Order: sequence, then structure tokens, then C-alpha cells
Amino acid sequence: MVKHNTNVRVSLPAVCFVWQIAMIILFGVFIRYDEESDARKWIEHKRDHNITSDIENDFYFRYPSFQDVHVMIFVGFGYLMTFLKRYSFGGVGFNFLIASFGLQWALLMQGWFHSLDPNTGKIYIGVESLINADFCCAGSLIAYGALLGKVSPVQLLVVTLFGITLFAVEEFIILSLLHCRDAGGSMVIHAFGGYYGLAISWVLYRPNLHQSKRLDGSVYHSDLFAMIGTLFLWMFWPSFNSAITDHGDGQHRAAINTYIALASSVLTTVAISSMSQKRGKLDMVHIQNATLAGGVAMGTAAEFMITPYGSLIVGFCSGIISTFGYLFVSPFLEKYLKLQDTCGVHNLHALPGMLGGFVGAIVAAAATESVYSAEGLRNTFDFKGDFANRSVGTQGGFQAAGACVAIAFGLVGGAIVGEFEKCVILLPMNSRVERWENPAEE
Amino acid sequence: MVKHNTNVRVSLPAVCFVWQIAMIILFGVFIRYDEESDARKWIEHKRDHNITSDIENDFYFRYPSFQDVHVMIFVGFGYLMTFLKRYSFGGVGFNFLIASFGLQWALLMQGWFHSLDPNTGKIYIGVESLINADFCCAGSLIAYGALLGKVSPVQLLVVTLFGITLFAVEEFIILSLLHCRDAGGSMVIHAFGGYYGLAISWVLYRPNLHQSKRLDGSVYHSDLFAMIGTLFLWMFWPSFNSAITDHGDGQHRAAINTYIALASSVLTTVAISSMSQKRGKLDMVHIQNATLAGGVAMGTAAEFMITPYGSLIVGFCSGIISTFGYLFVSPFLEKYLKLQDTCGVHNLHALPGMLGGFVGAIVAAAATESVYSAEGLRNTFDFKGDFANRSVGTQGGFQAAGACVAIAFGLVGGAIVGEFEKCVILLPMNSRVERWENPAEE
Amino acid sequence: MVKHNTNVRVSLPAVCFVWQIAMIILFGVFIRYDEESDARKWIEHKRDHNITSDIENDFYFRYPSFQDVHVMIFVGFGYLMTFLKRYSFGGVGFNFLIASFGLQWALLMQGWFHSLDPNTGKIYIGVESLINADFCCAGSLIAYGALLGKVSPVQLLVVTLFGITLFAVEEFIILSLLHCRDAGGSMVIHAFGGYYGLAISWVLYRPNLHQSKRLDGSVYHSDLFAMIGTLFLWMFWPSFNSAITDHGDGQHRAAINTYIALASSVLTTVAISSMSQKRGKLDMVHIQNATLAGGVAMGTAAEFMITPYGSLIVGFCSGIISTFGYLFVSPFLEKYLKLQDTCGVHNLHALPGMLGGFVGAIVAAAATESVYSAEGLRNTFDFKGDFANRSVGTQGGFQAAGACVAIAFGLVGGAIVGEFEKCVILLPMNSRVERWENPAEE
Repeated sequence: MVKHNTNVRVSLPAVCFVWQIAMIILFGVFIRYDEESDARKWIEHKRDHNITSDIENDFYFRYPSFQDVHVMIFVGFGYLMTFLKRYSFGGVGFNFLIASFGLQWALLMQGWFHSLDPNTGKIYIGVESLINADFCCAGSLIAYGALLGKVSPVQLLVVTLFGITLFAVEEFIILSLLHCRDAGGSMVIHAFGGYYGLAISWVLYRPNLHQSKRLDGSVYHSDLFAMIGTLFLWMFWPSFNSAITDHGDGQHRAAINTYIALASSVLTTVAISSMSQKRGKLDMVHIQNATLAGGVAMGTAAEFMITPYGSLIVGFCSGIISTFGYLFVSPFLEKYLKLQDTCGVHNLHALPGMLGGFVGAIVAAAATESVYSAEGLRNTFDFKGDFANRSVGTQGGFQAAGACVAIAFGLVGGAIVGEFEKCVILLPMNSRVERWENPAEE
Repeated sequence: MVKHNTNVRVSLPAVCFVWQIAMIILFGVFIRYDEESDARKWIEHKRDHNITSDIENDFYFRYPSFQDVHVMIFVGFGYLMTFLKRYSFGGVGFNFLIASFGLQWALLMQGWFHSLDPNTGKIYIGVESLINADFCCAGSLIAYGALLGKVSPVQLLVVTLFGITLFAVEEFIILSLLHCRDAGGSMVIHAFGGYYGLAISWVLYRPNLHQSKRLDGSVYHSDLFAMIGTLFLWMFWPSFNSAITDHGDGQHRAAINTYIALASSVLTTVAISSMSQKRGKLDMVHIQNATLAGGVAMGTAAEFMITPYGSLIVGFCSGIISTFGYLFVSPFLEKYLKLQDTCGVHNLHALPGMLGGFVGAIVAAAATESVYSAEGLRNTFDFKGDFANRSVGTQGGFQAAGACVAIAFGLVGGAIVGEFEKCVILLPMNSRVERWENPAEE
Repeated sequence: MVKHNTNVRVSLPAVCFVWQIAMIILFGVFIRYDEESDARKWIEHKRDHNITSDIENDFYFRYPSFQDVHVMIFVGFGYLMTFLKRYSFGGVGFNFLIASFGLQWALLMQGWFHSLDPNTGKIYIGVESLINADFCCAGSLIAYGALLGKVSPVQLLVVTLFGITLFAVEEFIILSLLHCRDAGGSMVIHAFGGYYGLAISWVLYRPNLHQSKRLDGSVYHSDLFAMIGTLFLWMFWPSFNSAITDHGDGQHRAAINTYIALASSVLTTVAISSMSQKRGKLDMVHIQNATLAGGVAMGTAAEFMITPYGSLIVGFCSGIISTFGYLFVSPFLEKYLKLQDTCGVHNLHALPGMLGGFVGAIVAAAATESVYSAEGLRNTFDFKGDFANRSVGTQGGFQAAGACVAIAFGLVGGAIVGEFEKCVILLPMNSRVERWENPAEE
């Protein structure tokens, strides 16, 4: 079937139409407004819960953070990928396409796993669902960072379809079965997304891509565009890590911790970058990426009582690790493992995400009632229902297990999806048109 | 009088100074703080209404949305018009100028029509007034999209002065007399603004503008700048459509519906764009514009119970219609009607806005008490006072009438303003200096 | 010691590492979560103060404004400095570095002066501390605007270290000892930061910098990047001036006043700019900078009952003054005082900040109980404790004194820091590598 579809004039429109129509049907069957966004149910909800003011609607707790996350997904991830002078359109444009498709599929997949009402068979959505859908897309967008310039839009849509699906499954295992906490997604988003993209890139490796290497550079203005992405990611990361944490102190603390960690990773990134270059000139790739590692590494622990200096230490280490990754790990992976990682997602997402998962495990295991109070401990780690009697030590162990699950899902899932793409969808991957290249940069 | 003012060194400063001084005088006579922003009145208001917490101030319900709308007006509309390599300064700079003037005049005009206190003769403003002023400017900025590169700044200020005035009148007719709902302004902003600009452009048509056509292209980096505008519009459109809806479920639902519709229109835009191009390459003009059509088309219905799949369908259709507009309608209008539409506002605003008006009419007419509850229906459609006994069917009819009023105002008003400009203000319209052209692109 | 460190490969990393480690130690000793971001203390705080809903957490009052301020600091100030085609990286990149370092040092310095708990010896931080830290950085970033292209990153970090320190002292004197109100920092941020940078630039003047003048131009695209900075500053300035004002009417009014003043200064800037240029073409430097003067000048008075037309008048005057500054004052300073001011901070920050300080003094002195009510007067001017009996006239006098203190601190502090830099840190200031210059623009 696919062999005859090699013409992108047919395959891309066909995929978009078929999938969008499928979304309409599935939304029609499954998706409804939740009790805070439904005209009838919000009135009943207010009456039933003695709520006197509309300001108690979850919208007002989370909407500003949602919009910040939304900017990160579309402008942050999109513009971060404009640094390659030939692929700027592809970076920002295909990012736009796959996020727009991904968030619809994510609303369904996350709904089925997390909030399907067994009585009505419906998924009820509100502002928190939108944030989670954006988060879910982030995993696939990270994977795109490893594939930039090497795949066609249809392949990207397939990567996204499976990426969202795998995300929903691993998230269910990690958050619901293992009962981990991972509000900013160090594990479920960054470690998973990074290794997912790397595994796909490894499977799709083709030696002739090397020939075009000299074209893969940046120019002054493309680097300035990429800094727009970097800065919006950096500035709004406190919103990312606090968007779905507990109301009140939870959101407040997660924002503070992330803000502090990010500041710290800027300084260590600059230090290592300057040290590594001839005459101390800073490398734009490091400034654009490694400065963000502090936010990735705080994804799990941001809502815990990690203390402000603890956040500084996490940012300090992750800036160093990430910059070293760009200096030594990426060249090593490319040379010996034949693994191309266009945007360096291994250094920005995979490694700091893994670090963040283990930091979260340690901070959880070290939690005490004297610091959190009994009620605070129960709120922060959600020790309720089946998990009412879990100890913080056990929680720490499960957190560490969660990080391993995320990495395994990314690697195995990515390898399978990569093989699937290689076998089934033999699209003309070198076509310049399809990758939306800059015709002036030949 | 004007004949002697052809020197822009005199006319532009003179207009700016005279109008700004007029604004100061009129603000001094009419504009005061409302009861939520006045030091004395907020204390009294809290006491009178038994409000215990400052968080009940409307500021906290609307300010985050206001800032998003503000970004859309200045960065969104401004950068969207930078795609022409010669007119990037004019696009972003004159957008800045006319919005800054327009919002002052809008506070006055909307105040006189909607919130003039008959006892004191004053207009009381708060955060909702600022949002409405920004909305009011949007109409004139849309009109500017049809005129980009063809008019001088003084002409633009005249277009804005009359545009704001006409807006306030048609808004009064549609929202107050016909009692339509149009929170996101499909009718009052987009349909009106689009047809207003098109009518002016049609009247001002000059054949010699054709000669400079070859200069009207984009370059790689100017398209990347324009994508900044596109993305900020796209991301913040949920805030646009929910900014002035009802507290609680109203704002919540409007944001969800718009978010969903926009995602859907990205996919259909990509599909049609790819289908239409040789070798499937995507056209940047479509990606920059038609992806936004879903937000325009949801402007009226976003606050209704249109259901999530209903929003997907609206986005699906508007992405298709808008892209077809760029492919077929714009060339047709230019060739046979001698109508130049620089940014394609017909396809992005006028058509989807009209669609949105009629979608709103249908959804309103289909509203039932079982879905909304009696109280919900009353809140959503504001069936109070003189309109307490209006049925949803009648409401649907008035909604459709409202869309027609908006279009008529745009077309007739634009034609008159265009004739006025042609007769009275014969400024040197081809001056490169005045249009702030890029001297390097000759 | 320093003489041997002239190699930036050693000095920059060494400074970054040493200072970041010092931050970790000092944060460990001093900084803790406050009662609204601590898991245990928020539960106790809610119980003790009969707070029933988490929405009363200060996070929800201030976080949206905080994020807007954060965007102004990193994207606003950063991109505003990209207009020079050779220094775009340095503008946005070093801005990123010094703000990231500065905010950490600011949390400590402001904590010691304003919120050190005498019983525990700890500083407790929440979202308001983050906003204040960002504000504190703004002072040093403004100073950077006068030094752009002339100093090395290590010098900049020293300028920031002392700038933050001086800021905390003058802020303590002005806000705590003199008990001035200055929510948007006309005095403590803009007047201080502007004169601090100018004094350093004056001391560091070297004639040979003139030789590179022809390289200091802008290009079309670098001006478009700078407009991103301008617009984000302009749009979010209402959040800047309202971020730390009183809950409720205070934040609401400050946002409205700033919004109005900014609109007004755009029109007068355009008028003067057009009048001053041959054939009326607008000068991008004026549009990028003087349009913001209205926000600077409203920094002190925004929270007062200055009335909407009062705000318009302030914006009107500050747009004129600032544009005249670019036309006449900057060339004069350069020619006769040997004072180079790369970004014109004298015209954008120093002058309008001084104006803002005196406007604040006048509006404070003119306050009456009939306008504010007794309680409103007490809230707005914080006439409590030791200052319960202060009259508005006295307050006006102290406000004026505060403006003078800020200017004096800037001038004297800057001169001392400049001399220190000249004597001690003789780094190779002309190195292109260190200033991260665009290699293509030679």
C-alpha cells in the first residue's frame, strides 16, 4: 500500500485527513466537558460543594500556567529547532503540525488510561487535561529533536502517533501503578522522550546523511531565532514544573525551586562552555540548550521540599553534565554507535531527565514528617487510598523504578517504531522539498 | 487644508499631537476608575457586597487573559505582517502606532455606548474595558492587513479613527440592541474588520501598484519572523475567545473549545496546502494564516456548549475554507474585482468570521435546557431583563442577523472611508520613506 | 593576581564556578521557603488565619505578573539589545548570564535587608521575593545597556555584583528608612540603574572605541529582533508596575494607569521622531526605546489615584522627553562629556525614571481623603506603625528625597565601580571573541 504513496502530495494530505476525521469520531464518542467547564455541571458542582465563588474553578488555578506551557510547546520547542539554517521552517513548522495532531490524540489516550468514567464510558476534560495533553506532546517533540532534517512529515506523524500511545502507557504504569510523583515529567516526559527519539534515530541511521553534514550549520540570525526558543523555555519552565502540582504550596514551591535551579545551570553552562573553547568564546549550542538542563532535572523533585540550596545544587550539576554531553558524549555516540542526534536531545533531555528521576527518588526517600508535617506528607506524595500506608523509603524505591521504566519504554519503543518506519514507510527521505529546506542554503 | 500638508514631516506629527491632546481632554472629562480599581470604591464595594477577599476582584479573573490578548494585538498582528521583506518595519511599526492610538479612542467610544453612567456622565473603566479596547483595535488592525504597503501612516490613522467609531456602533447594535452573544468577536471583530479593510482596499485600488509586485515577496528570515506572529496568535487564541466570557464555566469552556478547534484547523490547512503545491511542499502563507482560522470561526460559539467534537468540526472546516481562499478566492478577487488584499484578510478573517457567526446562530438555536440547565441557559445567553423571555430559537435568528449587520457595516463603512481618503487625503502614497521600506530590498 | 588571568578561558569559568558555589553555601545557610510555599507552614498558616481556599495563596495573586516580569527581564531587555548587528549574541547572551547570576545574589541581598528573621537568622522566600529579585537585576541590566560592546563578561559580572549590592542598600534607604512608595521602581530601578551605568561608562571611556563606530550600526533584521524586545517590554509593563502593589484595587489600578501612559508615549514618540527626520521617515531607535518611556515614568505613581488622564499626560511628556534625549542629549553627552551610552539608557531609563520619581512625589502630596477614603489612603501609602501619622505632604517630600538618593547612589556608586574595574580588572576589553561578536560583520 505505502509503496505507491511515495508522492508526498498524496500521502501527507491523506494522513492528515484520515486522522483528523478519526479524531472527530472518537471525540464524538468519548469526550465531554468536565464538571468545571460544563454549564449544567458547574452549577451543580458549586451547589453540592458549597462553593460560593467562581474563582474556585480550577481554571483560575491552572490557566496562566497552561498558557505558559503552551508557549513552551509551540514557540519554545519550535524555535529552539530553528538554529539550523536549512531546517528552520521544518523545525518550527513540523513542530506545529505534530503538536497539533498530538494533543488531540493525547486527550484521548490519557483520557482512556486516567479518567474514563466506567459508568458513562466518557472522558471528561478540563484545563488540567489540556496541560497533560501538551505535556504528552512534549515527549514526541523531544524525539523530533533527534530526527530533525532526517525524516519526512508523514514519518514524523507516525512517530508522534506511537509516541503519544507509548507515553500514555508508561505514564499509566509510572504514575498509577507504581504511584510515582512526577509533576514536571523528568521521567515520563524527558527521559522517555529523549531515549525514544535516540532509539529511532539509531535505527534509521543512514551513512549518506554524513555527506550533507557541511550544510548542517547555523548562521548568526538562525542562532538568534533559536535563542527565542531557549528563552521562552527557560522563563516558563517554572510554570511547566508547577502546572499540575497541588494547589497552594505545591504550585508555589515547584515554581520557586525550578526558577532557582535554572539560574544555577546557566552559570555552570557558561563556565564549561567558555573553558572548552579556544580563546574562551562561548558556544551558542551550549547556551541554547544546556542552560535548560536545570529545569529538566527539577521535573520530579520540584514539588518536594528539596530546599532552595538543594535546587541550586541540582541546577549546578545538570548544567555541567549537559555541557559535557555536548562536548564529549554526542561526538562519541555519533562516531562509535552511529547515532545521530541533531539537536542533542541526549544531553538536554535524556541525561538530565534520568538525573531528575533519581534526584526525585532520593528527595522522596529523605522526606520526614518534621519537615512536611503528617498532612503535608500525605498531600505531597498523595499517600491516600491503596497507598495510605506507604513509607517514604518505599516511595523512593518506586520513584527510582519509575525512572527505569521510562528509559526502558523509550529505548524499546523507539527501536520498534524505528524498525516499523524503516520497513513499512519507505518515503523519499532525502527529498529537500519534503523537509521544507531553505532553498537559498545549498 | 490637506493639500499643503503633503509633507509627512508635518502631517504625521500634527495628527499625532492633535489627537493625543484631544484624548487627554476627553479622558479628563469622561474617564474614571471603576469600583474595582478605585481606592475608595473598592473598599465600599467589598463592604456592600460582603466580599472578604481581594481575589474576588475582577482583575484576577481576567488579567492573565488580558495580557495574552495584548500580546496577540501587538506581537501577533504585528509580526504576522512582517512576512513581506520590504514592509517588515511598516508591518510591526505601524501596527504598534495604530493600536496605541486606537485603544485610547476605543476606551472612549465603547464607554459612551456601553458604560456611560447617566447620573455622573462618566465612563468607569476596569480590566474588562482594557480587553474590549484591545478587541476594538483588532478590527482596524485586520483592515490594515488588506492595506499593508499601500497607504501612508496618516491614512492608517484615519482608517483607525473611523474603524473604531464604526466598530463601537455596530457592536452596540449587535450586542445591545440585537442582544447577540459574541465573546470572541467572530462577527463584531473579524467579519467586520475583514470586510472594512477589503472595501477600503477596493476603493483605493491603483493599477500602478501592480508594477511593484515583484518586490512583494518574502525571504526565508522574514517568513520566520512572521511565524512568531502566527504562533503567538495561535497559542493565545483560547485567551482571546475566553477573555470576556462569564466567570467560571464560561471562561473554562471557551478556552477548551478554542484550543481544540485550532488544533484541528492546523491539520486540514497542512493537508490542503500540501495537496495544492508541486511536489507537496508546504506554502508558508497557508501555514502562517489558515492555521488560525479555527480560532476566528470559534469566536461566537466558544462559550456555548458546542461540545469538543463540534469544535473539532468547526476547526476542520475553517482550515479548509481558509486555505481554499488563499488558493482560489484571493487570485479571483484580484483579477476580476481589482481587489488587492495584501495579507489575505478575506481568507483569514472575513470568511471564517462569517462562518463563525452562522455557527454561533446554529449552536444557539440548538441549545436545550437538558444540556445547559435552566440557570445555565440564562447565564450563557444572558436571558435577563428585557430579554428574559427570549427563546433559543429567536436567539439563533438574532445571532444570524448580527452576522449580517457586521458584514454590512464593514462593507458600507469601508467604502465610505475609502472614498473619503481618496478625495480628501491625497498624500504621496507611493513614497517609500513613508511606508518605511527596507532600503536594501530594491 | 588579575594580571595573569587575562585569558578569558580561565577567568570567566573561575568567576562563574566560585560565585555559584558561594551562592549554594549562602543559600544553604540563609534561604528557606516562606509560609505560603512550605508544605508544613502553609497548612498551619491556613489554620491560623481561617483560610479556607488555596486560592488565597499569594501565588495566585502574583504569579501571572511574575511571569510577565520574567519575560521582560530575559526576552525584553535581552532582545532590545540585539539591534547592533555585531553584538546581538552579546546583547541577548550576556543579558541571560548576568540576570541568572544577579537574581541569586538579589535573593540574598534583598533578604538580608528586608526579610531576615531575627529569631531564626533565615530569609523566607515566596513569589514576591522572585519578583523583587527580577526587579533588582533590572537595575544592572539597564547599566549593561550603557556598556554594550565595551566590556568583557567578567567585567559585567563584577558590575552586576556591585550593582545588586548597591541596589539593595539604596532600596532599603528609600523604601524602608524614607518610607517611599515605588512599586514599579521609577526611582530605585530606572533612575538608579541608568545613572549607575552612565557613571561606569564615563569612567571607562576610551577614545579608540570611536574607531569602531562605523561597525556599530544596525541592519534590517537586527532591528526586527530588537522590536521583539521592545514589544514584550511595552506589553508587559503594566504587569511590571503592578506586580508588587497591593492586592485588589492596587494591582488593578497600577495596570490600568501603565497601559494608558504607554499608549500615549507611542504617539508623541512617533510625532517627534517623524518631525526630526529628513522626509519624515521614522527612526527605529526612537520607536524601539522612547515608546517605553511612559512605563518608566509611571513606575512610582501607577498605584496612586493619578487618574486616567493624568497617566495620559505623563506618557505624553515622557515620550517627548525621551525622544529629545536621543536627538540632542546623547550626542551632547558623547561630544562634550566623553560619555558613550550604547543603548541610550539615559533617555529611556535615567531621565524618565527621574521624571517618574518627581511625578510620584507630586501625586502623593496631592492625595486627599475625599479621593482615597481614610482607609484607602492608609493602604495605598502604607501609613502604619512608625508612619501612622505621616501626612501626604510629608510623604511627597520624602518621595522627592528618594529620587535624589537613587540618582546619587547611581552616580557615586557607578563612578567607584568604574574606577575599580579600571584599576583592578585590566582585561583585554577589545577582544572580539570575548564580546561574542558576529564574525560576518567585520
